[in-house]
Formats: sequence, C-alpha cells, structure tokens
Amino acid sequence: MSTPRPLGTDSPFAVPSDSLFGTHNLPYGVFGTADDPRRRIGVAYGEHVLDAGAAALAVGAPAELAGPLAAPHLGPLLAAGRTTWTRVRAALTEWLTEPRHRAAVEPYLIPRAAAVLHLPFEVADYVDFYASEHHASNVGRIFRPGVEPLTPNWRHLPIGYHGRSGTVVVSGTPVVRPSGQRKAPDRPVPDFGPSRRLDIEAEVGFVLGAPTRQGEPVALADADEHVFGVCLVNDWSARDIQAWEYVPLGPFLGKSFATSVSPWVVPLEALAQARTDPPARAPEPLPYLDDRAARRPGALGLELEVRLNGHPVARPPFATMYWTYAQMLAHMTVNGASVRAGDLFASGTVSGPEPDTRGSLIELTWNGEQPLKLPDGTTRSFLEDGDEVTITATAPGPDGTRIGFGEVTGRVEPARP
Amino acid sequence: MSTPRPLGTDSPFAVPSDSLFGTHNLPYGVFGTADDPRRRIGVAYGEHVLDAGAAALAVGAPAELAGPLAAPHLGPLLAAGRTTWTRVRAALTEWLTEPRHRAAVEPYLIPRAAAVLHLPFEVADYVDFYASEHHASNVGRIFRPGVEPLTPNWRHLPIGYHGRSGTVVVSGTPVVRPSGQRKAPDRPVPDFGPSRRLDIEAEVGFVLGAPTRQGEPVALADADEHVFGVCLVNDWSARDIQAWEYVPLGPFLGKSFATSVSPWVVPLEALAQARTDPPARAPEPLPYLDDRAARRPGALGLELEVRLNGHPVARPPFATMYWTYAQMLAHMTVNGASVRAGDLFASGTVSGPEPDTRGSLIELTWNGEQPLKLPDGTTRSFLEDGDEVTITATAPGPDGTRIGFGEVTGRVEPARP
Repeated sequence: MSTPRPLGTDSPFAVPSDSLFGTHNLPYGVFGTADDPRRRIGVAYGEHVLDAGAAALAVGAPAELAGPLAAPHLGPLLAAGRTTWTRVRAALTEWLTEPRHRAAVEPYLIPRAAAVLHLPFEVADYVDFYASEHHASNVGRIFRPGVEPLTPNWRHLPIGYHGRSGTVVVSGTPVVRPSGQRKAPDRPVPDFGPSRRLDIEAEVGFVLGAPTRQGEPVALADADEHVFGVCLVNDWSARDIQAWEYVPLGPFLGKSFATSVSPWVVPLEALAQARTDPPARAPEPLPYLDDRAARRPGALGLELEVRLNGHPVARPPFATMYWTYAQMLAHMTVNGASVRAGDLFASGTVSGPEPDTRGSLIELTWNGEQPLKLPDGTTRSFLEDGDEVTITATAPGPDGTRIGFGEVTGRVEPARP
Repeated sequence: MSTPRPLGTDSPFAVPSDSLFGTHNLPYGVFGTADDPRRRIGVAYGEHVLDAGAAALAVGAPAELAGPLAAPHLGPLLAAGRTTWTRVRAALTEWLTEPRHRAAVEPYLIPRAAAVLHLPFEVADYVDFYASEHHASNVGRIFRPGVEPLTPNWRHLPIGYHGRSGTVVVSGTPVVRPSGQRKAPDRPVPDFGPSRRLDIEAEVGFVLGAPTRQGEPVALADADEHVFGVCLVNDWSARDIQAWEYVPLGPFLGKSFATSVSPWVVPLEALAQARTDPPARAPEPLPYLDDRAARRPGALGLELEVRLNGHPVARPPFATMYWTYAQMLAHMTVNGASVRAGDLFASGTVSGPEPDTRGSLIELTWNGEQPLKLPDGTTRSFLEDGDEVTITATAPGPDGTRIGFGEVTGRVEPARP
C-alpha cells in the first residue's frame, strides 16, 4: 500500500475548515464547462465541483450509486429515495476524503469558476407557501389596513398555492419586467403596461423525491423520506398585477413570469446542526400538523441575506418561520395529492420581526412609502430596470462550521416593447 | 393499379357518416392492449383505434411524421408545432381513406374496446380558469350573498390559477375522497376529516404545444399556433376544504387531490365548424384581449352532458363562456410566461344561464339547499362514496356531422382511514 502524498495548498482536496463547501455540505447541482457543455451532476467541494458521474466510474462505484449520478439532471437520484441519498452522500464523502481515491478522483474536480450551472432538476409541481407570520402580518397590514392582518385560517394551516413550474429558472437568468393589467386605487378601470411595482421575495425551497401514490398522504414524521434537499428561491412578484388579479383565486400573472432558484441543492442530511425549535404555536395545530412530539426540532436556522446591486438590504432569519417544511409537506399531501421526483415547494417570503429582516421590498419600504436609501446614493421603492438582486444564505454545520447555499441572483431587464 | 376491394360492413374502414369519430374528428390518445401493453399513440376512428406509429411505418411515412407518432406519448408531436400537426392530420386522413393504403393500415386498426387508454401526455403546467359568467355569478351569489357576485376584475381579465399537474389523471381513474380541514360557519375552529361536500366541475381543456421562450407572450391572433387540441376535464372539488383555505391565495387542497381528463384530444383543426361568436363583452376588453377583429369567431360550440350514476343532470353549453380559449392563452402569457409542450389549461366550470345547464353540483343544488332528485329515487347534494360522474360532449362537424369527445369519468372511493 502506497503512502498518500501530502496535500499541497493548491490541491483541490485541501479545503479549509472554514469553507462553506467542505465535506459537511456537498450540495448537488448540474453543470457543464466551455470545453464540455454536456450537462452532468456536480457536487460543490471547496472551490471545485466534482463531476460526480465520472468520479463514480473512476472509483468503480456500484451501479446503485453510479447510475443516478450519470444522469444529466437530478431526476433519477431524486426518484431513488432516502436510502440511496444517504449511500450516495457517504460515498461522495469517501471519494473526497480517503487518500486511496485521490488519484482517481482528482481529474474530475473542476474549478467552480469554470462551471456553467444549470437548473439542477426538471421542476414537476411548484408550490409556494406563506409560512412567515411576520411576512403575512406585514402584507395584511399593508393591503387590508385597519383589520386583523392574518386571515382566520392562517394559524390553522400553512397557506399555499401552486405556481408555474415552467418558468422556474436557475440563478443568473435575466428576468424580463412583466407587463399586465394594473389598476390604480383612484381609477375606475385597469390599464395595461409594464409592472411599476416589481418586487422580490426571499424564500427557502425544498426539493422532493421518493414519489408517492395518489391518495396516500405523507405523514409529518415521514417528511424527511421525501425531502432531498434545500435551495434558495427568489419569487419575483409584480405587486400591481398581483393586487388587481388575486381575488378570488389567488396570485397568477403577478408571479408566473419567473421564479429563480439557486443552482446548488444542499442535502437535508447536511443540516442536522441547523435544526432548531420552531416558534410556539397558538392555537395548537390539528394532529396531522402537530410536531410537538417530533423526534428532532423541525425549524432550520438558515440565515439569509438579500443584496440589491451589491448592497445588503435585509437579513431574513429562516428559523422564525411559523410553519416548518415538514408541516408544509404534510399539509400539501394530506388530501392525497401525490409527490413526484422534482416537486419543489418554497416557504414564502422569509421575514423576521425586525424591519431589516424583511424579505421583500414591499415590506422593507412599507408599500413604497419609505424608500430604501442605498449606499450608492440612490433610493428604491421597487425594482428598477438593470437592478440586480442576490440572495445568499448560510446555516450552522458540525464543529462550528457553516454550510453555504451559494446564491440566487437575477438582473431585471426592461419590459419588451 | 389494382381495383380496391369494396368495404364490407365489418371493415374497420366502413365508418358510418353519423359516427362521432369519422375522419372529420381523428382525436389522439395513448393506448396499450392486453396483448401488447406498450404505450403508443392511437387515433380514434369509428369503433377502432389506429396504432398511428405502426401505421406510419407500414405506409412508409417520412420521418417528420413517423417520428413523433412513434413516441409513447404525445410530447414530441405537441412540441413539433402547427405545421407538423396539420401534416400529420392530413396524412392520417389519407391513410384511413385512400384505398391504396388499406392493406397496409388495416392490421393496425384495433377494436377500441380492446384498447386500454392512458393519460395521453405528461402534463407540464396545469392552469384552471373561471371563464363562465354564469358559473362565477352563481358561486358569487352562494358564497358572498347580498353583494355584487362578480369581483371587480372579472370582466376585465380571465381569472385563473395554477393547479397541480401531478394529480391530473386519465378518465376511469378512481378518485379517493380527500380529507382536510373543514370549518363549519357556526364553529370557531376547523376540524379534520373527509370532505362532506365533494363536487365536480365540468370543464373543457386545451392542450398546448409549440414551446415559447420566457419573456415572449402569445398574441391573441397566434393562439392557434399553440393550441394542439381540446379535451374534457372534471375538476373535482372539495367545497368545504376549499371554502376554508382559499382566502387569500386561492384554491389549493380543495382541488389538488385529482383532476380527470378525457383520453382523447380532439385536434383544434377538427373544430372549424364548431366556431361561433362569443357573447358580447362589456366593458370592452383591453387591446391584448380584444377579439372583435379576429379572423374567425373564437367561441366553440361544444355541448357537454354531465351524468351522475348514469342519469343526465346537466347539459352545459360551452358556447356561452365569456372568455375564449384564445383570450385565456393570451392572458396567461401576457406577462412573458412561457408555454411548454404538454401545458394544459381548462376553462373553469361550464355553466349556461338555465338551471339545468350548470356544470357543478354546488350550482345544481344551490349549495346543497335544493338536492337533485335522481330517477333511481335517491337524492344528492354533493357526491357520495361510490358515485360515478361522467362528462361527455359533442360539437358540430362538417356536413351535419358531429364531433365526439369521448368521456371523462370517475368513481368516488371512500376516504382512506
């Protein structure tokens, strides 16, 4: 047995312990390179991305692991379910840390800067929730002043709706300002034109796999069998279009023009240290949503940051969400709705109690009445053409490390004539 | 050149002129048989189904036609676009009517009774509209008595929302009664249990192809470039779950447990004689929805029938819809939302002005206050376990013929314990 060569600081295996992408993370994505644009599954590791399918072949991994990793998207891996997810993660850790694999694996570690990242999975159904009490309360106060801000159902169930999966795009995709019907409060009829109140919503997304059959709900305790991992979501929102259209059947064109997701899906398993207790709920949830007897705390301590043209404008704390991801999934399927590999659900805007923790401009500027003053001397009520919004997040990892989520970013392009 | 043999009455080519499935129709589906369960594209013709991919090979069709027809679902054909759709339809007509093709084609005409019909395409995004003025008015009167039944936006835009594409099922699939949160008006809090107000909605669905790019709306005049064909939809609805959940973000679990579609997609081209003028609109729609200068009338004269346990209970007239399919598509994409092959949008409940033309039980029984008396001596306010609902439709074809849509049927199974 040969002695492993020591790691030089320029070795791709020499990942510092304060990296957001050490072996404690290992998020999945889909990438190509300029030289080789074929889409393939990549795993972020330090400043590199591992070509996971090629590495699996190089180390002689069994078909159960190599098969899903050889796909051009995460679909087969998502379909395979929790047992395979755990085995693949353990194998990746081994390939990246055991000296005996170094020579075989090293050729498949590609500098991340050279990788072009794609949408990592075909989105099956996309559901957007509304699970932050602070966000829902703020929006209620803005849209329905003078009455109780939360609707009577809000504390009884995680409110959600289906969004458009065909317009979910990967971070970096430009977002064209949508046009549509807008009605000013003082006008009797709507007019048509580009949205004047284009907004963002900083959210956390959950990627599902292990398909279920129609008629068979996912119980709260089984949620982790179906939640593959976690990403960041920017649910772009045209507030003027939304305000006019949404009664009585909910948001439609105010949301369906684009939803951006981060290219890396952080495995749920990487977030064990991020678990924390959810807020107290009153009234007690119905039994199918009651997580007080859960084996592990159900909230996740992701700390988000929203940057507008590079300037931090909000730090939404995901741990403050009223409903957990397991409650959202249990609710979404309690009527027998099935889960498909590639289903995505998002949390709804993450807003904390303090003004600078609100995850949307409509809250940060209080419906445009208190414009944001940016350090570059400009102000914003809503987004202007050319504006770039970036959402990032980290979460606690083992032994004082942090888990990185990468970013979801997008720049606003002018409305098409 | 040989003289074609005369058609015997038992020839599959001997389709009577009053058939709902003559060459004037030729709807597409996906089928298998007990002997050969492989999924393949079928075209209904008289009492038979043509194995279209096999027939294309047998007659030596060019790859442009044979390729999409060889798929196990309609996806590639949907993606190919209008020019291919027209060519394929013309070719099918030729294969089924020209005597020189008879010998080659006849082996691929399979008795329809032997065909097991599947969902004909993978549903990409599913959108449900609310385009019947009579339905929206009835529901408004029932849910919001004493106020204007239509919301202020209703006559300005076709209201719609995204549904769950993963729970769209083909006709014949049993529907499990959903459970969920229900709140009685006289109770302070919700309870949980099987829906007590399970309903149907008789709708017409539109199947899309010829994908578009994000940011590029489909203009009203271009709608027919993207509408491949038409099917029937039963949008099963749990009224008690829906009533409690739908404010403020719209229907969710009250709908997402199941949506049934007919197995045959009638080509839009087959419906030329079904075109008719839509109702007068007031106020005038905004320019992107204004169809007064359209080349052809935009409403479609489908006549639906709803049967409950075999008894006709309603005959909804699709021609009475306020908004046309072209307006729905133009609206759905005006914000730049893209179209994918396999997108499905449904009209919303089709209800005419007369009581026996209403397409849902909540309207037919006026919220359960006036139960239906069925000829078998039973009464219904909403659906009971074991009930079977079937929706059929026909439309005018050329030369006095009728176009059949087949049926969408489903039986209610008891809630799972």
